Amino acid sequence: MNTPLLNDRLLRAMLREPVDRTPVWIMRQAGRYLPEYRQVRERAGDFMTLCKTPELACQVTLQPLARFPLDAAILFSDILTIPDAMGLGLHFVEGEGPRFKQSLQTAADIRRLAPPVMDELRYVFDAVSLIRRELAGRVPLIGFAGSPWTLACYMVEGGSSSDFSRIRSLLYDQPELLHHLLNVLALTITDYLNEQIAAGAQAVQIFDTWGGLLTSAAYREFSLAYAKKIIAGLRREHEGRRVPVVWFTKNGHLLEDMAGAGCDVLGLDWTADLTEARRRVGGKVALQGNLDPAVLRAKPSVIRGEVAKILANYGKGSGHVFNLGHGITPDVPVEHAAELVNAVVELSPAYH
Amino acid sequence: MNTPLLNDRLLRAMLREPVDRTPVWIMRQAGRYLPEYRQVRERAGDFMTLCKTPELACQVTLQPLARFPLDAAILFSDILTIPDAMGLGLHFVEGEGPRFKQSLQTAADIRRLAPPVMDELRYVFDAVSLIRRELAGRVPLIGFAGSPWTLACYMVEGGSSSDFSRIRSLLYDQPELLHHLLNVLALTITDYLNEQIAAGAQAVQIFDTWGGLLTSAAYREFSLAYAKKIIAGLRREHEGRRVPVVWFTKNGHLLEDMAGAGCDVLGLDWTADLTEARRRVGGKVALQGNLDPAVLRAKPSVIRGEVAKILANYGKGSGHVFNLGHGITPDVPVEHAAELVNAVVELSPAYH
Repeated sequence: MNTPLLNDRLLRAMLREPVDRTPVWIMRQAGRYLPEYRQVRERAGDFMTLCKTPELACQVTLQPLARFPLDAAILFSDILTIPDAMGLGLHFVEGEGPRFKQSLQTAADIRRLAPPVMDELRYVFDAVSLIRRELAGRVPLIGFAGSPWTLACYMVEGGSSSDFSRIRSLLYDQPELLHHLLNVLALTITDYLNEQIAAGAQAVQIFDTWGGLLTSAAYREFSLAYAKKIIAGLRREHEGRRVPVVWFTKNGHLLEDMAGAGCDVLGLDWTADLTEARRRVGGKVALQGNLDPAVLRAKPSVIRGEVAKILANYGKGSGHVFNLGHGITPDVPVEHAAELVNAVVELSPAYH
Repeated sequence: MNTPLLNDRLLRAMLREPVDRTPVWIMRQAGRYLPEYRQVRERAGDFMTLCKTPELACQVTLQPLARFPLDAAILFSDILTIPDAMGLGLHFVEGEGPRFKQSLQTAADIRRLAPPVMDELRYVFDAVSLIRRELAGRVPLIGFAGSPWTLACYMVEGGSSSDFSRIRSLLYDQPELLHHLLNVLALTITDYLNEQIAAGAQAVQIFDTWGGLLTSAAYREFSLAYAKKIIAGLRREHEGRRVPVVWFTKNGHLLEDMAGAGCDVLGLDWTADLTEARRRVGGKVALQGNLDPAVLRAKPSVIRGEVAKILANYGKGSGHVFNLGHGITPDVPVEHAAELVNAVVELSPAYH
């Protein structure tokens, strides 16, 4: 644990401290676009075995770092480990995404749902410790969790959905029941992230993937209020350094509100304009993002040009972490991911 | 054609002229939530027969007006009639949405695509004339089309998609090819809407359903630029009245830009805040929307409360057309749709 951190560019940028260049990492950087990932995934048999075996999770977490000069590792895991540990039986159906054996169908289902014993998630914390050891201080490790609203979306629906209509009806029809569920989840997520931090996560990101489905009023009440609760309960200092927190909402548009949630960084999807976003958050938080993942299927010269635009959009000074606006897709050629990272490394020093 | 319009509340509100109460219509108001619609749909056999038979299209267009005191009829049709007339072979797969027999797979496919002969779409204009006759001036009739970007999304993908990744790659890799396609579509849509207006449509709406998938820069270049082109080419006066144009982008967030596209009304989805949106468009356009369709599955008292909030959010004065933020879903009880309309009728006079 006490190995000194050799590259702290990510943590510095997240806290808006001066850096020599813009740090870069890629959402889902340990993923299916890497042939070496697909190999390990195939040997493991299924996705959850990969998540639940710390040695394998560690192995795939480190894979992209061997290829690209990335400024962070991110724990290989899934946001749905928590509902899985609550007994909902997570599994993945090829081409359809996550499914639960049991969804929350009735008020009774929701009321009887108990927070998981943290020991059920030991495999996550073991993976964090192991990755930290193997990283040996090269770059910081990011831990993560889903937001209460986003986890509840999947739990009530029983899996993925284009519009999560069941929970959106529940929200209007039985708001107090939904608040009960979100409260249980917020407490659990707080414990879960604190355990990741104790095990060695040096920054944490909360994925509010489906927050953008909500009206402004509902977003404040059912998503952001719980972000505040969680962030207020997190251990913000560990191993003598501040542990930055990133709040990422897909299609999030209430930037001023989000910037007041207590996080250090806002993660933005590709639809946001960084110049405008930076003006709106007024120096309160750093920004992470936000290249359109579709750019990575275009030719390398286009990728470089779009990276240049994002850097120019943010402009001069610290407080920007380069990333995609959403996860990298399996069809991206590895050389294209390399071009993205190289372009950030080569073009960003001019902004610092 | 020369029957006087007995209820012009919609047209007046769209032009920000004084009204006695806020007009209301519902996106997809002639749809599967109505048992009488399902009956006609079943007899017709398939959805496209319904669209292509003016008598049936007219019949279902009028159905919701017999139930609710709505302030407009909207042509029963589909945004994909244009690519269908271009020879792509539109059909609907149960539970999966629209599919084309042929999608635009290659640059050659796109380059050889010719604008349709307008006569192929005669059934639409015939339906418009017939509906106007049957309406006998009770309320105005709204015509519509999809935006070039939205039609191109379906045409390149070959159907619906969660992220339309093929066209988003095309956008970055071969922007000039995409512009060619969008140009052909914009010309066609202009003619198509002008024919609807000539046949009797008293307002028109352009559905930019997938504009919200784009970055700010790409939205301006690949969606909004074509909105401007189309709107500039539309016949804006017919039968002695102005024909208002509504531009609807789902997840649209560049309101100031949208307000400058030449439209009279911006259609907003439920994630927008009407107070904020009204401030941002600064009296340049009227606003249409934006109740979350999920509200209609909640109990009537909740529906009434949420309608009240939307009315209060817009505030006093004309320039608001009440609607959902997206189409009504098939699982909504008819009494709930009635409660929505009644609540607008009863609560909105206080704002005028």
